[in-house]
Amino acid sequence: MVTARRFKAIGVVHSPFKKAADIPMEMNADPRGFEGTESEIALFADFEPGLKDIDGFSHLIVVFAFHVSEDGRMLVKPPFETELRGVFATRSPHRPNPIGVTVVKLLGRTGPILRVSGLDAVEGTPVLDIKPYTQKDQKTDIRTGWIK
Amino acid sequence: MVTARRFKAIGVVHSPFKKAADIPMEMNADPRGFEGTESEIALFADFEPGLKDIDGFSHLIVVFAFHVSEDGRMLVKPPFETELRGVFATRSPHRPNPIGVTVVKLLGRTGPILRVSGLDAVEGTPVLDIKPYTQKDQKTDIRTGWIK
Repeated sequence: MVTARRFKAIGVVHSPFKKAADIPMEMNADPRGFEGTESEIALFADFEPGLKDIDGFSHLIVVFAFHVSEDGRMLVKPPFETELRGVFATRSPHRPNPIGVTVVKLLGRTGPILRVSGLDAVEGTPVLDIKPYTQKDQKTDIRTGWIK
Repeated sequence: MVTARRFKAIGVVHSPFKKAADIPMEMNADPRGFEGTESEIALFADFEPGLKDIDGFSHLIVVFAFHVSEDGRMLVKPPFETELRGVFATRSPHRPNPIGVTVVKLLGRTGPILRVSGLDAVEGTPVLDIKPYTQKDQKTDIRTGWIK
């Protein structure tokens, strides 16, 4: 019933944050906390041809592996929260499948290297996929539960 | 260098679309094409506790496996397009890691079952993760390249 699937890294993140402890808790709690953070996504050479046409998009969805997290928790305590929350109602890195999804701004590209801002991933994070952010992803009139 | 990772299904999609061929091409080309589509995400019992607090969110990010796609292509032809596009500049299911990311509207929950609209995934699609859609994911003033 629970089938496992194998995914491979297509590239790696180069971040000003060398490890999770380098990220101030305030940044994780603020929805705009990472807007000023510039990182690089260095794709492995085999995947560079897949970046054709990417320059036309202002924002990208980066799918990555939380490679230093512990997985499997059902309840987690978000930064500055006192109550335990269901993991699927949070963006915690500690989840049944340690997959992160972050929308970033594309600043520029040099061959297989994308320069982006807004990426909340530490140095060495394996990148699994890159997708264009489109109208489909723009939702207005949202409710965000326990998040102020 | 390219490390592989294993991910497990946390649940499964029940969709009105029994197979990919049941989805009209127009729906895939239209950013609002799936807004009227209602599906269920049935989590496996072990993961139900992780849904605590989910009801407060109007929209969710569903991460799933494109389980019937062929992977590994660097250039793909989107619906109604004549030009080949870099796979990372498209939402094609045929990608190095067959991972889909779709923002859905949460209509309701009954135990481990979420009723959602807007999910472009066929019957039996393995679900890998569910995340709340928050302010972080709302981008305005976007450019979407080759997509009209």
